[in-house]
Amino acid sequence: MEKEIQNIIKNIKPLSAGAMKNAKQYQDSLIKPIGSLGRLEEMAIQLAGITKKVQNPMDKKAIVVMCADNGVYEEGVSTAPQEVTAVQAYNMLEGKTAVSVLAKQGNIDLKVVDIGINGTVNHKNLIQKKIAYGTKNTAKEAAMTKEEMEKAVLTGFHIVEKLKQEGYHIIGTGEMGISNTTTAASVIIALTGCTVEEAAGKGAGLTKELFVHKKSVLKKILQTNKPDKNNPLEVVQKVGGFDIAGLTGCFLAAAYYGIPIVIDGVISMSAALAACCCQPIVKQYLFASHHSMEPAYQIGAEKLGISPYFQLEMRLGEGTGCPFTMYLMEAAAKIMGEMATFEEGNVDKSNYIDIREETEYDTGYRGR
Amino acid sequence: MEKEIQNIIKNIKPLSAGAMKNAKQYQDSLIKPIGSLGRLEEMAIQLAGITKKVQNPMDKKAIVVMCADNGVYEEGVSTAPQEVTAVQAYNMLEGKTAVSVLAKQGNIDLKVVDIGINGTVNHKNLIQKKIAYGTKNTAKEAAMTKEEMEKAVLTGFHIVEKLKQEGYHIIGTGEMGISNTTTAASVIIALTGCTVEEAAGKGAGLTKELFVHKKSVLKKILQTNKPDKNNPLEVVQKVGGFDIAGLTGCFLAAAYYGIPIVIDGVISMSAALAACCCQPIVKQYLFASHHSMEPAYQIGAEKLGISPYFQLEMRLGEGTGCPFTMYLMEAAAKIMGEMATFEEGNVDKSNYIDIREETEYDTGYRGR
Repeated sequence: MEKEIQNIIKNIKPLSAGAMKNAKQYQDSLIKPIGSLGRLEEMAIQLAGITKKVQNPMDKKAIVVMCADNGVYEEGVSTAPQEVTAVQAYNMLEGKTAVSVLAKQGNIDLKVVDIGINGTVNHKNLIQKKIAYGTKNTAKEAAMTKEEMEKAVLTGFHIVEKLKQEGYHIIGTGEMGISNTTTAASVIIALTGCTVEEAAGKGAGLTKELFVHKKSVLKKILQTNKPDKNNPLEVVQKVGGFDIAGLTGCFLAAAYYGIPIVIDGVISMSAALAACCCQPIVKQYLFASHHSMEPAYQIGAEKLGISPYFQLEMRLGEGTGCPFTMYLMEAAAKIMGEMATFEEGNVDKSNYIDIREETEYDTGYRGR
Repeated sequence: MEKEIQNIIKNIKPLSAGAMKNAKQYQDSLIKPIGSLGRLEEMAIQLAGITKKVQNPMDKKAIVVMCADNGVYEEGVSTAPQEVTAVQAYNMLEGKTAVSVLAKQGNIDLKVVDIGINGTVNHKNLIQKKIAYGTKNTAKEAAMTKEEMEKAVLTGFHIVEKLKQEGYHIIGTGEMGISNTTTAASVIIALTGCTVEEAAGKGAGLTKELFVHKKSVLKKILQTNKPDKNNPLEVVQKVGGFDIAGLTGCFLAAAYYGIPIVIDGVISMSAALAACCCQPIVKQYLFASHHSMEPAYQIGAEKLGISPYFQLEMRLGEGTGCPFTMYLMEAAAKIMGEMATFEEGNVDKSNYIDIREETEYDTGYRGR
């Protein structure tokens, strides 16, 4: 398996510069002040680089939700009981959770994967890929073996491979797993060298006392495992979780097969960061969504040089940020497909000055 | 007309506190960490306050696009010729401009209004409400007479009144008019007391020389008209435009009839600000969309205490920011309508701690 993963990483190719150039040229012929659609324009150009086509349908969409339990739960870093992972995975498949509702609104297929739930979920639509009944307690030992990590990464890889074969245009990433803001923060701390104080967040909700406790557990996790940031997959193996390992495989597959992929919150971000530490080209295939309230999210985003599009003060996970970015991606693609050119709209393009390079307003925008 | 407008302003009522309380209570019973959907939750509560109902369909949507020309064009504050207003209004109706494409994606009806185009647009779907063939040059005199201003405000009011009667759930605001970043900045400067240097932007695109010129014209406009910020409708009359006056009427109508209304870019913001200066309660009916690149936008937003949801670096207008917020509003409403409660989803709510009040992370988010 190690060799298979190394081969994948080695064979990830950068975006098509030619397609991006053509897309930019076409975009600048559309009837609007040049550059005035801002990041929607960048988005359409990035999509062209990924698909090698200027015009892109973006209507077949899926969110892969990796569900898994984490042994570190036994350190008392969460208030919800571990059973909630299985219950919510089931509820998700029944259309009852937030991501279910948002996916339905956006005509997005949910692919719910049991990659390591500590329990049994019986549902006809569940993708059964359980590697173990949860990971080990990272405060005491490595989360998983090297073989388990590789199996989880390849599980994610092959799920996205199949979605690509089925004709999906965009992949979103989500997760469900009690205690996974602890594992995600562990991975981000290990990969960026930031401090526990900078990265720790309150997850689904913690009292002040439990928050202090969570930070001490995070320190213990890092001391116990001493993850080496030069070996990102080992970081995931030692202090991550099956969900994070699976999503890392999803990000690698998206880059390998040339399909745009959306980051959700902090857990998804930790996997995107791990994939990019393996192969920096992966970054070119990524689309951010919302700015999660978990502090480690922003640390990961800054390390990747990626900016979210939304500030919604969300901290839910499940993939709930993805539908909104997918809607923007469809908008960016439709602009390229449906707007008139200056010629078709009877406006002289030379009326407009391209100010993209020279304008640097300080617009004073500092989030909310 | 003055009396009709004063009556409208006097009869605008605050949101229903009871409906908002019920909505919050119901929301906190949904199967997710309490408060974890952040601003989507606030949005659903605000919608309940407006409609007086906890459950809200939000699928019938319209964007009102006020099209008008501005006499200040003759000062050379824009690079595009004035004819572009009429040409783009026509293109919009033909489905060729950016807002046409985005409205179609979101299943949103476009209501394109000629409220003062300096030319004639022939299209069966145009709403013909022309007050004059453009305003006067505000660098030399008032943009319009008091009667014209009142007629424009009431035009916007009656358009939204009709949409409410037709069963629309959300109204968006857009505009088309060469030189209207100059009029919008004039209004925002006059109403907030900020400086020309702080508020001036490059609109659709200006060279450095033209930008310096635009700022000198803005100073001249304010010196010539000496608008009184204590009389917001007089500000619109003296230094605004027919589009801004019409949109001001739309905002007043939304608050008067209890229908949520979305702000687009800087022109729309100037009208929202004028409406709120007439009647501060109007703010309760407003939804921001994207953070426009025009600096005066942020000045208006700060004055209103309103934060945009998106950072897309857009500066196009037409109403192009509205479809994205409308999508969020539909999402917020669907969450209330379709998610399971803790009870229905077999999760014990007492597992979750409400951390909304006590948590103040500095997430480091500073926009892009």
